Amino acid sequence: MDFITVAQASQIVLENTQNFGVETIPFQESKGRILAEEIQADRDFPPFDRVTMDGIAIQGKVYESGQKTFAVASIQYAGEPQKTLDNKNACVEIMTGASLPKNTDSVIRYEDVTLKDGVATLNNGLPMFKNVHKKGHDRRKGEVLLAKGHQLKSADLAILATTGKEHVKVNKLPKIAIITSGDELVEVNETPESHQIRKSNIYAISSLMESFASEIRQFHLKDELQESIEMLQNIFDNYDAIILSGGVSAGKKDYLPQALAAVGAEKLFHKIQQRPGKPMWFGKKGKTLAFALPGNPVSSFMCAVRYVLPWLQKSIGLKIENEMAILAEEISFKPKLGYFLQVKLKNENGHLKAFPIEGGGSGDLANLSLNDAFLELPNQESNCFEKGSVYPIWRF
Amino acid sequence: MDFITVAQASQIVLENTQNFGVETIPFQESKGRILAEEIQADRDFPPFDRVTMDGIAIQGKVYESGQKTFAVASIQYAGEPQKTLDNKNACVEIMTGASLPKNTDSVIRYEDVTLKDGVATLNNGLPMFKNVHKKGHDRRKGEVLLAKGHQLKSADLAILATTGKEHVKVNKLPKIAIITSGDELVEVNETPESHQIRKSNIYAISSLMESFASEIRQFHLKDELQESIEMLQNIFDNYDAIILSGGVSAGKKDYLPQALAAVGAEKLFHKIQQRPGKPMWFGKKGKTLAFALPGNPVSSFMCAVRYVLPWLQKSIGLKIENEMAILAEEISFKPKLGYFLQVKLKNENGHLKAFPIEGGGSGDLANLSLNDAFLELPNQESNCFEKGSVYPIWRF
Repeated sequence: MDFITVAQASQIVLENTQNFGVETIPFQESKGRILAEEIQADRDFPPFDRVTMDGIAIQGKVYESGQKTFAVASIQYAGEPQKTLDNKNACVEIMTGASLPKNTDSVIRYEDVTLKDGVATLNNGLPMFKNVHKKGHDRRKGEVLLAKGHQLKSADLAILATTGKEHVKVNKLPKIAIITSGDELVEVNETPESHQIRKSNIYAISSLMESFASEIRQFHLKDELQESIEMLQNIFDNYDAIILSGGVSAGKKDYLPQALAAVGAEKLFHKIQQRPGKPMWFGKKGKTLAFALPGNPVSSFMCAVRYVLPWLQKSIGLKIENEMAILAEEISFKPKLGYFLQVKLKNENGHLKAFPIEGGGSGDLANLSLNDAFLELPNQESNCFEKGSVYPIWRF
Repeated sequence: MDFITVAQASQIVLENTQNFGVETIPFQESKGRILAEEIQADRDFPPFDRVTMDGIAIQGKVYESGQKTFAVASIQYAGEPQKTLDNKNACVEIMTGASLPKNTDSVIRYEDVTLKDGVATLNNGLPMFKNVHKKGHDRRKGEVLLAKGHQLKSADLAILATTGKEHVKVNKLPKIAIITSGDELVEVNETPESHQIRKSNIYAISSLMESFASEIRQFHLKDELQESIEMLQNIFDNYDAIILSGGVSAGKKDYLPQALAAVGAEKLFHKIQQRPGKPMWFGKKGKTLAFALPGNPVSSFMCAVRYVLPWLQKSIGLKIENEMAILAEEISFKPKLGYFLQVKLKNENGHLKAFPIEGGGSGDLANLSLNDAFLELPNQESNCFEKGSVYPIWRF
């Protein structure tokens, strides 16, 4: 067998990642996107000496000198401009979130004070807590809060909001065409004849990619050469990536390899030492990459999870981190091939265990619903994979 | 301190989950949703004896009796109605995905056959592989493919497609109102005065919940009692859940507790033995739940992650699974409170390690961007949490 290995295929795919440029979008829509600019603090955080308790603001040294009663000179609410304490022996009633008044440095909580007739009397034996979140304590103006290349999560949207980034620069997402072929396929809303089946693979693959693409458009190629060539030509010109599902085997009506050659697509590899998904083809034409996946539902899905998705994620600027799991049962596998085992993951006390649930094989779509990931078992001499050994996983 | 514990608060929240009913949606939009019906196989899978190789179809026993050459009687393509082999000594050329012709039971791959002048000659020493995926091999008509209550993933969309479920019944998502209060807040596109800050918490919290809600609408309460009561009344009547951010402390203008009481909201708890997020309030009015979260950005976010999100997930039918991680460094924490430590997660050979990255405290929003989860450290006698010990995590 002279097909390439899983590692080689993966390397070729990841060497051919793309860059789709940059765009500016409303910050509320930026979750999951990759920052294409640095976000700096537009001012100190907190931006003023921020009171963290409701109570009274005083000068700490007046209290320390022995004074226990303070006349209330004014009230400082959150959202009001900073007030000033003119008489250092008095106090300002103050609310959480307000600016600490000028000439004060400490806040005593209501719980530690008796307020009567406009005079605050401090309880006995109070330690002096300041209860003030000092200006610039957390972050300084100009400090980088979010680095270029960072993937925005929910909490980051608050950082964008607080720095006034109503619009934010992020990496652009690609336009993807996903193409089915095969005259045996009918639409989901049709009732298939006994020799027909409904289109299904493309929906699973589209759904996998949807958060990483700006557009995913579905096409169907008839098993007819000239028509296939014209359609492919047009798609190559207008999309960043093409996923083809089925049509790459040696069948008499499998015009895809011919059509791909006719439009000038360069083959980067064809066939991988793996099960499922052996017949996968990968190539490109200009900047547009093409992944021709096998027609079997489990095979095409596995190739999308293991090759297309990492390509897409790396292309839009995401870091690909290899996640590992611990095989929870011994598994035997005969042919000398890389094997993608369907597993159900379980976090047991911080240990990520992979429990194999094997189904009917590469046509048994329904079995995927019982699992969470493919465990990538290497092509090795021994055909036995021991319980407790650790392998990469590809979640789906 | 007589506040309730984290476990008690969590229990009360989860005892008050809601059920928002059922709706029917296009299957392409169903990813992440919870099935409200059972999906059965509408026919056998595969629905016919499906050929898995391109080649010729013959009767195996004719080959076994010694015959090696077979005249090609016809061609059977995928997508064509099933043909019949009338002469058992002949063969049918056949393509992957096609129905196995009547009166045949085995497919010989092109690679193992020499085809010349309409006659196929089998290579020597061929073992008899059938290369047929038998009707009903994977799943039988009527078998349950997806159970009621299952959360739909990408692969499941293909199962819905293949069974013709163009529309699917799923659990409905709630309408959520998210309310800020505090006169110090200005909009994201405004330039704050030195004593003001921009609204930020609500964007992080909205983003956390967006995939679990049908609508999230933002409101802002002025620090004025009568107005707050009217607005709250209206919101309770029209939403399934209310998140309030800020306004639950003892400040002079914190009208929220009063306003909540005035509209008839019943308090289920107020204050939790935890840091951050101690002042959290939880209550309900009729079927509408209200979560009043502290105003500090980290506190409100943590309460949303730890209490609101699990409530939401359980309410829409998701199973809440406690995920655990291994503390990667020793941590000390003094006050006798449940402590939510910000951690960065790392999968090290299948072990999920939690690395603490502590920031400036409950106001330091920017620190959240460096972390992935809160590690929930229990309220215990010893204030030291050992490296290697295992605690629940709450991802964000």
